[in-house]
This record gives sequence, structure tokens and C-alpha cells, in this order.
Amino acid sequence: MHQPIGVFDSGIGGLTVVKALRDLLPRENIFYIGDTARVPYGNKSAETVERYALELAGLLLRENAKLIVVACNTVSSVAIPKLRAALPVPVIGVIEPGAHAAIALTRNRHVGVIGTRATIRSGAYENALRALNVHVRVSSCACPLLVPLIEEGLLEDQLTDLTLARYLKPMMNDGIDTLVLGCTHYPLLAPAIARSLENAVQLVDSARNCASSVKELLERQSLAASGDAEGTLRVVLTDAADNFLSVARNALQLEIGDVTVQSVC
Amino acid sequence: MHQPIGVFDSGIGGLTVVKALRDLLPRENIFYIGDTARVPYGNKSAETVERYALELAGLLLRENAKLIVVACNTVSSVAIPKLRAALPVPVIGVIEPGAHAAIALTRNRHVGVIGTRATIRSGAYENALRALNVHVRVSSCACPLLVPLIEEGLLEDQLTDLTLARYLKPMMNDGIDTLVLGCTHYPLLAPAIARSLENAVQLVDSARNCASSVKELLERQSLAASGDAEGTLRVVLTDAADNFLSVARNALQLEIGDVTVQSVC
Repeated sequence: MHQPIGVFDSGIGGLTVVKALRDLLPRENIFYIGDTARVPYGNKSAETVERYALELAGLLLRENAKLIVVACNTVSSVAIPKLRAALPVPVIGVIEPGAHAAIALTRNRHVGVIGTRATIRSGAYENALRALNVHVRVSSCACPLLVPLIEEGLLEDQLTDLTLARYLKPMMNDGIDTLVLGCTHYPLLAPAIARSLENAVQLVDSARNCASSVKELLERQSLAASGDAEGTLRVVLTDAADNFLSVARNALQLEIGDVTVQSVC
Repeated sequence: MHQPIGVFDSGIGGLTVVKALRDLLPRENIFYIGDTARVPYGNKSAETVERYALELAGLLLRENAKLIVVACNTVSSVAIPKLRAALPVPVIGVIEPGAHAAIALTRNRHVGVIGTRATIRSGAYENALRALNVHVRVSSCACPLLVPLIEEGLLEDQLTDLTLARYLKPMMNDGIDTLVLGCTHYPLLAPAIARSLENAVQLVDSARNCASSVKELLERQSLAASGDAEGTLRVVLTDAADNFLSVARNALQLEIGDVTVQSVC
């Protein structure tokens, strides 16, 4: 049995990263843990998010993970340094891969970033983008209503469209040509977001870019699974799944199988 | 120093109950704990909610609380029996007081109930209403988007009005004459809710009715604070407050003073 890639998120949104990993690395085993007992992290303090992240990473290490993927922008934006210092395996978040993709895509060097309040407040995308190109201009907007709308399954809905217009129109009028979807829930809303931006802005899906970074790292460090067998996917949640699991399953067309519930605190 | 009334909630919404207690029982000391590190409870399983509730009640007992007020509909709807069995002091929730008030108000015996998914799924209001009057007809609707809208401070906003219309119009067309606001956040939205119902439906504010029940119990059991001194209010949160604390403080015009942050897990 190959060592799995360990993936964790505050809840179920990180399954967008799992979907991207399955598509790109079908032979890898994946062990996913979603902290549904304490979701959402987006309005919590950095200290609390760091503490929760270390607990979840600890669970993944006990599952013999060869690599930890932080499939959550909030955690990636505040806890990556602590996780890298504390863990004996490589840690990949979603911020750096998303920032790289945005810099590669933008033509006018004006990039928009949307995410939870914690992600935006951290300035993590801004810092990552500026580290890659000092001339980039960044417009950010916290969008705390999007996760509840997505979790309700309102992916194509007037309420969602109105909410998106309120968040996105000022950035579009301000001239961004690229928008980073800085929350792992948001890829589920990509069609509505593209429409709201009149298909005039390029979207950066942090889930897909994170998966590409994982692939590169596995190859570079010779950690990739060998053989031809299809990899397995195990999903553990810290509380019983609510209806968002079926929303995600349907929208992503992801084979999840049985979900185990396991307390973390 | 009088023993305090202990009040707990999944977060900050329970301050609507604190406000009602302060107005009705100004001489009582109140110790409030809001579990902002794990908020919201509304989509979590009954088992997890019970476990969290016992932890918070334990903290209040260590503060020498003479009475525990469960200022959270989700907890009240699933964990009151466990709390009453486990605790050595009286426990008052928000469901029974709200149900009593609704039965007293309704003329056509058709009562609406709105709340989180967990509260509505529990059927707690339906059971409490039917226990009081077997002929009552109950229409319930889970409104999971309202808490995020309230926490964003969108108390008077087109998005909130549209969301309310979607949840409430079917109940109004169905003929309810009384609506129970079955979530401690909802009193902050009472004006918008009344408007959405064309001021034709009576609203039952579970916070205010809960405070009345507390007053009765204190008098009945001779537990009321003596003397004329104004009572104190202490607020403890399990994680740093986000912007909802200022939303609640302003909307309720509640003097909160310094807020202490203390981990519970």
C-alpha cells in the first residue's frame, strides 16, 4: 500500500482539491480529513486556526501521509509557516500555486483576490503575488456570504448572482483582468462568477493549481506512487456530513465512497 | 457577590437573550460564554452539539452559576434533556418559553417556526407546541442563510429582504398568523421579518420569552438577587470576536465591557 497524500480542510470545500488531485494523479492514494465539527474557519482567529491545523495534520501523519496538502485557503494563509516548522513531511498550501498562476495569466498586472475574511485579512495572496512581481496591483475583497450560499447548493441562483455582483462589480470596474478564487469552495461557483464578470476576467482556480504543485513536488522528490493500480480515496469528517456533501459530490462528480466520522477534539 | 445566571450560546447571537435578561432583571449578575471557536452549531450533528453544550455548561458551573440559560435554539432543541440530567442547577432553554408564547398569541392555531437546519430537523418546536395544544398546525422552515446575513450586519438590505421573501412567503400564503423566531440571532432581523410578512403575522421573540421564564423560575425558587445594586455582565468567548460582536452591540445597545477570550478545547 502506497503512503497516501494527506489532505485536510476546515470542512468539505477542500474536496475541490481532491477532485483536481484525482484527475491529475489517478494512481495516488488520498486520505482526506474535513473538520466539519468546527467548520467554518473563515471568521476565526489566526491562533485558533493554527491550533486546529496542527491537530488535523497530526491525524494525517498517523495515517502515514507522505505529504500534507492544506486544501483550505484560510489555513494556508495563516498556518503554513507553523505547519512547515512542525511537520516532518512536505507541506503544500493553495496560496503560492494560485499566486504563481495569477502572475502567469495577468496582462495588465492588476489581479483581484476573493476569499474569506480571514484569508483576505491575512494579506497572504497580496504578499505572495508581490513576492513574484513587485509591480503587480492587487484588489482584494472578503466575500463571507459566498460559502453559505455554496453550501446551500445555490450555485445557479438569483441570490447568488446578486451577492456576486455586489462583491465583484467594484473590482471589475477597477480594472482587474485576473481573479484568484481564494477559497476552495469557490470553484463550484466558477460559472456564476465568470458570468458576473461578463466573461472578461480570467479566473484562477486555486484547487487545480495546488494539484499541479503537488504533482511537481512528487516528481521532484521521487515520491510518486509506482505501478498502474488506481489510487484509493478515504474521506474522514469530524462530524456527520450535512447536505453540502451531496452538493459537492454532485457538482464535482467525485466518487467519495463511505465517509467515516471521527472526533478530533 | 451574588451567584450569576450562567448563559451560553454557540456564539454571539445569544446576546439577544442577555439583553432581554438585563432589561427584565437588572440586578442579576450574568456570566455569558459564547463558543465562537466552534460557531455555528446549526449544521452540526446532535451528538456534537450535546458534547459542546456539556463543556460550556461545565465552565459556567465552575463560575458558580445558580441557573443555566441555554441561549441557543440549536442547543435547546437537541441537548436540554442531557443537560438537565447532568447538571445540579436548573436549566432553561428557549424552546418551551417560545412555544408557550406562540400558543397564547395564535388565533387561527396555525404557527410558523423558522430556525437553523438543526433546530428545524429536531422538531423541537413542533413537539413543544403540540404538547401545549394538540390542535395546533405547525409550518416550519429551515433558514440557513439568515445567520450569515445577520452576522454581516445586513439587517436592512435588499439581499436579506430577498432571502426572507423566499423563506417566508410560502408560510404566509399557507396562512400562519404567528411566527416563532427560533434562533437567537433572528430578533436582530425582526423589523425586516415583520415587513416581509406585511405586518400581518405576530412575531414570537424567543429571547424575550426566555427571559420571562428565567424571572418566573428565580422568583419561584427564591433565587433572585437581593439588594438594589445593578448586576454585572461578564462576557467570555472561546475565540476572538469577529465583526458580528460590534453588529450585535450596536443593534442591541448592550453595554458589554471587556470581552475575555478563553479556550474550551
